[in-house]
Amino acid sequence: MKNTFGNSVTVTLFGESHGEAVGAVLDGLAPGTPVDGEYIREKLTLRSARSDISTARSEKDEFKIVSGVKNGVATGTPVCIIIPNGDTKSADYGKTGFLARPGHADYTARCKYHGFEDRNGGGHFSGRITAALVAAGSICCRALEEKGIFIGTHISRAAGITDAPFGDIENDVKKLAKKPFPVLDDARGAEMHAAILKAKSELDSVGGVLETAVAGVPAGVGEPWFDTVEGLLSHALFSIPAVKGVEFGSGFGFADKKGSEANDPLENVGGKITHLSNNNGGVIGGITNGMPIVFRCAVKPTPSIARPQKTVDAVSGENGIIEIKGRHDPAIVHRAAFVVNAVAGLVVYDMLSGRFGTDFNAPKTEVQSI
Amino acid sequence: MKNTFGNSVTVTLFGESHGEAVGAVLDGLAPGTPVDGEYIREKLTLRSARSDISTARSEKDEFKIVSGVKNGVATGTPVCIIIPNGDTKSADYGKTGFLARPGHADYTARCKYHGFEDRNGGGHFSGRITAALVAAGSICCRALEEKGIFIGTHISRAAGITDAPFGDIENDVKKLAKKPFPVLDDARGAEMHAAILKAKSELDSVGGVLETAVAGVPAGVGEPWFDTVEGLLSHALFSIPAVKGVEFGSGFGFADKKGSEANDPLENVGGKITHLSNNNGGVIGGITNGMPIVFRCAVKPTPSIARPQKTVDAVSGENGIIEIKGRHDPAIVHRAAFVVNAVAGLVVYDMLSGRFGTDFNAPKTEVQSI
Amino acid sequence: MKNTFGNSVTVTLFGESHGEAVGAVLDGLAPGTPVDGEYIREKLTLRSARSDISTARSEKDEFKIVSGVKNGVATGTPVCIIIPNGDTKSADYGKTGFLARPGHADYTARCKYHGFEDRNGGGHFSGRITAALVAAGSICCRALEEKGIFIGTHISRAAGITDAPFGDIENDVKKLAKKPFPVLDDARGAEMHAAILKAKSELDSVGGVLETAVAGVPAGVGEPWFDTVEGLLSHALFSIPAVKGVEFGSGFGFADKKGSEANDPLENVGGKITHLSNNNGGVIGGITNGMPIVFRCAVKPTPSIARPQKTVDAVSGENGIIEIKGRHDPAIVHRAAFVVNAVAGLVVYDMLSGRFGTDFNAPKTEVQSI
Amino acid sequence: MKNTFGNSVTVTLFGESHGEAVGAVLDGLAPGTPVDGEYIREKLTLRSARSDISTARSEKDEFKIVSGVKNGVATGTPVCIIIPNGDTKSADYGKTGFLARPGHADYTARCKYHGFEDRNGGGHFSGRITAALVAAGSICCRALEEKGIFIGTHISRAAGITDAPFGDIENDVKKLAKKPFPVLDDARGAEMHAAILKAKSELDSVGGVLETAVAGVPAGVGEPWFDTVEGLLSHALFSIPAVKGVEFGSGFGFADKKGSEANDPLENVGGKITHLSNNNGGVIGGITNGMPIVFRCAVKPTPSIARPQKTVDAVSGENGIIEIKGRHDPAIVHRAAFVVNAVAGLVVYDMLSGRFGTDFNAPKTEVQSI
Repeated sequence: MKNTFGNSVTVTLFGESHGEAVGAVLDGLAPGTPVDGEYIREKLTLRSARSDISTARSEKDEFKIVSGVKNGVATGTPVCIIIPNGDTKSADYGKTGFLARPGHADYTARCKYHGFEDRNGGGHFSGRITAALVAAGSICCRALEEKGIFIGTHISRAAGITDAPFGDIENDVKKLAKKPFPVLDDARGAEMHAAILKAKSELDSVGGVLETAVAGVPAGVGEPWFDTVEGLLSHALFSIPAVKGVEFGSGFGFADKKGSEANDPLENVGGKITHLSNNNGGVIGGITNGMPIVFRCAVKPTPSIARPQKTVDAVSGENGIIEIKGRHDPAIVHRAAFVVNAVAGLVVYDMLSGRFGTDFNAPKTEVQSI
Repeated sequence: MKNTFGNSVTVTLFGESHGEAVGAVLDGLAPGTPVDGEYIREKLTLRSARSDISTARSEKDEFKIVSGVKNGVATGTPVCIIIPNGDTKSADYGKTGFLARPGHADYTARCKYHGFEDRNGGGHFSGRITAALVAAGSICCRALEEKGIFIGTHISRAAGITDAPFGDIENDVKKLAKKPFPVLDDARGAEMHAAILKAKSELDSVGGVLETAVAGVPAGVGEPWFDTVEGLLSHALFSIPAVKGVEFGSGFGFADKKGSEANDPLENVGGKITHLSNNNGGVIGGITNGMPIVFRCAVKPTPSIARPQKTVDAVSGENGIIEIKGRHDPAIVHRAAFVVNAVAGLVVYDMLSGRFGTDFNAPKTEVQSI
Repeated sequence: MKNTFGNSVTVTLFGESHGEAVGAVLDGLAPGTPVDGEYIREKLTLRSARSDISTARSEKDEFKIVSGVKNGVATGTPVCIIIPNGDTKSADYGKTGFLARPGHADYTARCKYHGFEDRNGGGHFSGRITAALVAAGSICCRALEEKGIFIGTHISRAAGITDAPFGDIENDVKKLAKKPFPVLDDARGAEMHAAILKAKSELDSVGGVLETAVAGVPAGVGEPWFDTVEGLLSHALFSIPAVKGVEFGSGFGFADKKGSEANDPLENVGGKITHLSNNNGGVIGGITNGMPIVFRCAVKPTPSIARPQKTVDAVSGENGIIEIKGRHDPAIVHRAAFVVNAVAGLVVYDMLSGRFGTDFNAPKTEVQSI
Repeated sequence: MKNTFGNSVTVTLFGESHGEAVGAVLDGLAPGTPVDGEYIREKLTLRSARSDISTARSEKDEFKIVSGVKNGVATGTPVCIIIPNGDTKSADYGKTGFLARPGHADYTARCKYHGFEDRNGGGHFSGRITAALVAAGSICCRALEEKGIFIGTHISRAAGITDAPFGDIENDVKKLAKKPFPVLDDARGAEMHAAILKAKSELDSVGGVLETAVAGVPAGVGEPWFDTVEGLLSHALFSIPAVKGVEFGSGFGFADKKGSEANDPLENVGGKITHLSNNNGGVIGGITNGMPIVFRCAVKPTPSIARPQKTVDAVSGENGIIEIKGRHDPAIVHRAAFVVNAVAGLVVYDMLSGRFGTDFNAPKTEVQSI
């Protein structure tokens, strides 16, 4: 299993940046799951929104669903989503040398694929593949919303500036859903934006931290070893280009906590068991405890910068200096936020399908009774 | 797939803290892989070493290999390792109420297993299961060493004190291999130790950060999406009780870095391609780049503390105050270090077996030629 | 994944014929699933029953469950079953030559494991491993019975004699449950028995066909491609040593049928949809149709026979003549019948767990409500 | 995992008969594997060839490869193959009743998908999906040929007539490669053809048996339990619509064999170990023995026949009589032969990739040396 993820529900990615198309096959949706084109389009637009800090291609992410959907709902068979590449100028670089871009997968791809890889625009490593991931994940997110499960991500930190923390999570998550630059405190967001523009003017880029909450998942989901909630989520999240760290709840902050500060006391509040704090990020022993699942992803600065950098020619191995031309994103943290939501949606939907069966969110129909 | 992990090489865990035994089945070893009892025993001892900051059971972790090994080497068929529990006093708590220990899996287990779970000593959630993980992983680590791949972990931070960073990684890793309290700077280690004892005297516990290096993995291993090196490692690492964060290279530190600081320039040094820094922790685009794989795990403070804590009865749901009796580990970060090594060994061995075939480390034999 | 099978529920096998033990890890049982030692013992006895046509070792298949069961029910965590080998005399054949037994895995094992395999008594290829499979599968069979699903197998043909076909399947299945030589027509059974004894007297062995019915599986289980009911069952069934063919419903008999004879007409009988025939063996398009699942397994004659046979030395490659000493089973078809039941139980339980969720057969408990 | 198959190399199927397209994602090819459009087209044509016994749609199976191929070779990343449906007239049958076609998946699909399934032309159950399977599998077959592994299938029996058996397998396989009605004895083929036309004139259809040989696979591939060669092949083969039985070597014929006739003696012939017969079909103990892998698939008669048949309305459950209109294939056994080859190619390629590593058939390149 390589470019496929999931147990009960799986997603398979394909495509290259300058190839014919990128896409995904999403398999295992409950029959009758709504597949809402407007919702998907909205999420794709948030992922790719153009602005003074994003150089998304001008082409729109027009997607086509070529299977598995009828009358606006999933049939239950595999859903193949195709996002054609409008701009497919392609060159045969196969035999000519090229300077590997530091921080990009040019060199590692060469080591793995021996020169047969498609280098154009990053090929299969391009962030463009995440459009397919967002399309597939959005179907899951939308279905989870019908079950009362909401997922949202804010830019917790970027360019040295920290956003406000989550407060009322359900509310916060809903507010974040439509913000192309998703922050909880707009003033901090404006500061981040300015700092990103400054980095851009210096021909540089910035990294950041994304914080995500998944509200509404019932307690008792996940496994004690290996297929823990944290393990499954992190496995998928590390696919997102530039994600280099994943932490749950207090995460690395636990290093400076005492047990007496870190444990989450329980309380029965009016017949409902709750936790008085959420240092564990909604997961204990690999299993959900009914609190929101809260995690953070570290996002490295966009590696494409205009400054001269030392590198080697990936074919000849000779030393050289690369100066990457063209416009580049000085930050991708805001765009990655929507990819994180989609990935979380896929993983949570898969876990619930495994736990409660493949019809867990299927609408009731009379037809079932025959 | 629940308590099993791996693609080409898999490990399956079983057992409960106060049951008959804990153990693991390790499947997919190349035939002829040495299985060195002394080596395994040494790693088990490091994991469980008793001291003034560890309350490991007095019983020794005596393991038995009941299959898959003959004449000191793997046959190639599944290796089942059994670690009997010397101390199996067990009670039937099934129908009586009990106070869920905050920070432990008592409540989440109840939500998932509906009261049928074995609660004694944490049951299947017990850190004792990691003894089986260490035994299985040690076989992989030992085999990797023969291929020039070395894995080591130090306590990067604990109780507010920071160890020296990795310097000469290969050397550092070898030095760490036999230290029960694995630090690079012994003076810092002594400070940590003192701070842990202080927490203990306050009936409290501390968390920490572990930093691990895997030296010697060739470039070109891993997949661009989903089965990335980071994804596979983190998936398995989050199984280790108390691990709540995993980051690679600069990890969360990327948030405050510029692209010009974060990218790792390449250089041809005497015919060998190398990187001039290792902010990416040896992995770019999900694939190894030939630099050491470097990652850090956040470890939460031991949840068992003697102080009174608010909680609920996991059966009746009534509110109560728990005071956990007995001696408890004021820190587990030093013991977890050896579990991290074992898990890393399992994952790296699996990746190499998938990439280079199931005989990738099999000794050459004349028998092969018929 | 090698010696592990299943999606939602998995079984992992380990052990060698003359090693310490054989065993299985069964993971994914619903918490509260009864684990009935008497039931398992009964099935193990049927598998290994000694008689004039079976040379089962005199040792009893005493099994120990070392994890995952408490108070007679599954906790929901992995169940490890160990069946110790009473008779573990073992030799180091590693460097000496030996004649490969025709029809056995001696030569193929040597090609795969390069001489590191355990040859004693067939090692990991021994039929003895099926004891572990029967123990694990029996737990599933017992649980399925509580859901109204019954599995039974008869010797459809052996030594040239054909048993009566299934009639009233539910009844037939229950009758077969306790017969060590499971046939529907006892007179035919006696003829088979006599023919097997004759083969034995001629230092030879016989093959046969087993026919299995699984009654009570609801319609709508299985997948259209790859994880079809037929695909999952056959995948597992071909693990049983000596099984060389699997067919569903009319199977190879379809070759001589017309469509007008082969299609199974449907009828609504008093509000319940049924099929007027069952040529498709309960599965159409990979999915159950509510009729009993009926399949047949071809079983090859026991390869160990006393007659001289041409072969080669598996180490030196030199030609030779082998005469296998000792008593040997002139037939294993009757013993294999109980392995088939167990395997079918595992696969059906796994499919239902995937389809209806991991609690599909969990008893209702008050504890669930907190 | 549902509509995905494979371990190291996977194929994922999608599409509906009258939807936008059918297709497959093939992941895990060694970089540099030739992807030969002509070869694929030839196999697609053989699968769909129109004649007096086949009613393949008039549309050509024009396929597009939208990812994973550059300059005529695989890059090593997922290959997505799209076969657009020229003829996509579609109706919304969702709420109206319809008579389930006996022998088809209409009723089982309804039970599984609750009426959300796409019924047009069989939807996701249509034989048309096998075009995608053939396209993907052909890439593997072509690559295997470069390694000296050849796969071929003949119609062993159809409409009561039996073809000649395999003789010189390598030669036979090559002869079969271009025959749209693949038989070894053309006179028998003509008889079969006539018998099929007779069935057609009687508004009926016929079944058959396909026999396949895979020549050139080295000894030592496969696993002793679960991932046996037989288990993996049968798992995938049962996906092919109408396949209802799979047997290896003597298969069900073993029932009437003695051990002395069934065992395959070994002999060293000029330094090469061979077997003097191939009753085991090239696999013993789940592992290849170096002989050709030989298996047979039972193919049921095409269920669509023009005669009136009893059935029920799949929505209302009311009884009715169906008369299926239009032209229908009186036999599909000849077309299925090419699907079997493709599936065998996929499985064998996957097994070799797992055994010998993901580069097992990658061309040597200078680029590898950096």
